[in-house]
This record gives sequence, structure tokens and C-alpha cells, in this order.
Amino acid sequence: MEDKGWLTLGRDYLYKSPWCAFRVDDVELPGGARIEYGVLESGGFAAVVPVTNGENVVLVRQWRQPLDAFTLELPSGGVDSGEEPGSAAGRELFEETGYRAEGLEHLTSVHTSTGRSTEVCYLFRCEAVRDERGPHLEPTEFIEVVELPFGAALRMVSDGTITDAATVLGLLLAGSDTTACGRLH
Amino acid sequence: MEDKGWLTLGRDYLYKSPWCAFRVDDVELPGGARIEYGVLESGGFAAVVPVTNGENVVLVRQWRQPLDAFTLELPSGGVDSGEEPGSAAGRELFEETGYRAEGLEHLTSVHTSTGRSTEVCYLFRCEAVRDERGPHLEPTEFIEVVELPFGAALRMVSDGTITDAATVLGLLLAGSDTTACGRLH
Repeated sequence: MEDKGWLTLGRDYLYKSPWCAFRVDDVELPGGARIEYGVLESGGFAAVVPVTNGENVVLVRQWRQPLDAFTLELPSGGVDSGEEPGSAAGRELFEETGYRAEGLEHLTSVHTSTGRSTEVCYLFRCEAVRDERGPHLEPTEFIEVVELPFGAALRMVSDGTITDAATVLGLLLAGSDTTACGRLH
Repeated sequence: MEDKGWLTLGRDYLYKSPWCAFRVDDVELPGGARIEYGVLESGGFAAVVPVTNGENVVLVRQWRQPLDAFTLELPSGGVDSGEEPGSAAGRELFEETGYRAEGLEHLTSVHTSTGRSTEVCYLFRCEAVRDERGPHLEPTEFIEVVELPFGAALRMVSDGTITDAATVLGLLLAGSDTTACGRLH
């Protein structure tokens, strides 16, 4: 088919930090029109569905500045430069909850917001095994571990308590091995 | 439990457009440390899983500037001020594909990127009925309609052709009424 991609003529960075950047692109559309388009650059992050041998899922409650609120989510965190996403998932799980990841399995990887951000989410599930050496939180992290039955977590998706897209997607994929969703695996 | 929320001391907008804004917050953490935190402000958008009476799903192929690539996604678009998300879903479906939405049903609403963005995605499904008066694309929209069997779309999730989180989540929820995922409805 005919390519209808946009032509990027310029790129102006308004903000850069180790965690994200914001730029405004000067773009020419296929029809010839010029527009500006704001893009958030954000590195990948890994999130993991940790299931204990008691069939509980281990979630974290933390402050999310963009929402001005606390959320209940999968353990997750940024993938460091040169790090494998699976390693990041295991590391974040241990640091945030004190559980070790065993039998880590990749569920899927998605772009969180294709219209506005470069961000990628790498989703995993694992068996969560208690390790008394953890957790190890960063000085800037204030995280409460919330362990609950898998079915209770799915109900919190259903009733709107859990709204983080990565957490919703991870719980659905991890909880449905033998269902239609299992076709993803 | 003890509140461990962050205290926002200042908010500096580096960019504002009708579609998004980027700000840097000056924040005091519960431990007293001061940090800056970049936040993308982006309005809500509605996305819809349109299923024809031939059990095909209607997707759109379009350029996504943040990914510097084309994607295959659900029809979607911004929710205008004062507009109901369901109305936006039906309007975008018609404008982008020429299908009318019948029997629109809300699947779920999620935050696309809780760590970095205020963005909300309202997910729907509907029956897609051909209407010869459409589509009506904006002058800046170059969109190709891709209609394919539902199972083929799910395989494109599985093989990594479809990577948009909202599309993955919508297809899973809409395609699994009678499965574990159906617990969401």
C-alpha cells in the first residue's frame, strides 16, 4: 500500500530527565500540512504478576503523582539501560515486596499510549517465593505490600478499584490460562 | 493506614496545547525529600471494539508519531469537553471507518500510564453496522480501515503485530464473554 507516514522536520526538547523527556515535533503530514506534535519519551518498564503458592497475588499500593492519588498495581519499575526486562521484573518484585520471582514467564509487551508516548510495558508472571532478605526500598519509595486472593484482585478490576492498564491486562492474562485469553500465550 | 501521599509544592507548565500539556511538579516526599516529577496531562480517549455481523473486527492502520511507525488499533479518539465517552466512541468509529455503533457496551476504563500520565482510556464494544454516509476523516487524518476475523486479530496480538495496550485489552475483553475474562463485565 501507499506509505502515508509523517515526515519529521524538527524535534525540540522542552524537558529531559533520567526518567523521561518531553519534545515537540515539527511534522509534515502526507497532505502537506505542517503541525506540531507533543511526545513524551519514557523508557520501558517491567511489571509482574506474582502468585504465591497459596494462590494469592502480591500487589503494591503507592502514590501516583499524575493521578494525585494512591493506586493498587502490580510490582513494576523501569528497565535499566542494558538490563533484560525479565531481570528488571524480578529485581523490582524483590525490592518492593521481598518476594523472589521463580519460573518467570513473559506474558506480552505493549505500548501504553501510542498517541502520546514512547513507553513500553513488559508484562510477566511468576511464582512469588518469600525471601527474608527483602524488601529493599529506595529512599524515595513508600510502598505498601497488599497480598490478596487472585479472585479478589479480579473483582477489584471489575468494580473499578484497580484501574492501571498494565495491572488489568496482567491479571487477565495470568488468570486465564485455559480460556480465550490463553490464546495469547 | 497512615497516609504516605506526596505534597505538591509547585507546578510548572512547560507546554500546553489543546491536546496535551507537560508539567514539572515540585514535590515533597513523605520522608521530607524534595524531588521534581514530570507529568504528561492528556485528556481521556475512547476506543471501541466494533464487531460486524460477519464476526469481523474493524481496526484502523495509522501513523503514530511517538512510535515513528504505523500501528493497527481499535478506532479511537479524544473525548471532547462535555462529551460522554460512549458518544465519542461512536463518533470516532463512524468518522474513521464509516461504521455506525449499535448496542454500545462499556467494557472498562483504565489509566494508560499511572507513573507518567493523567490519560484515561474508556473501552467499549459494539455491533458495527455499515453506513454509506461515512467515513469522514479530518484533513490531518490518514487512516486505512482493516477488517479481519476476530480470531485473526487475537493472533496478531499473540505474534506482536498488535501492540497497543488499549487494543490488546479491548480485544481480550470483547472476545471472552464466557471465560475468566468475562468476570470483568
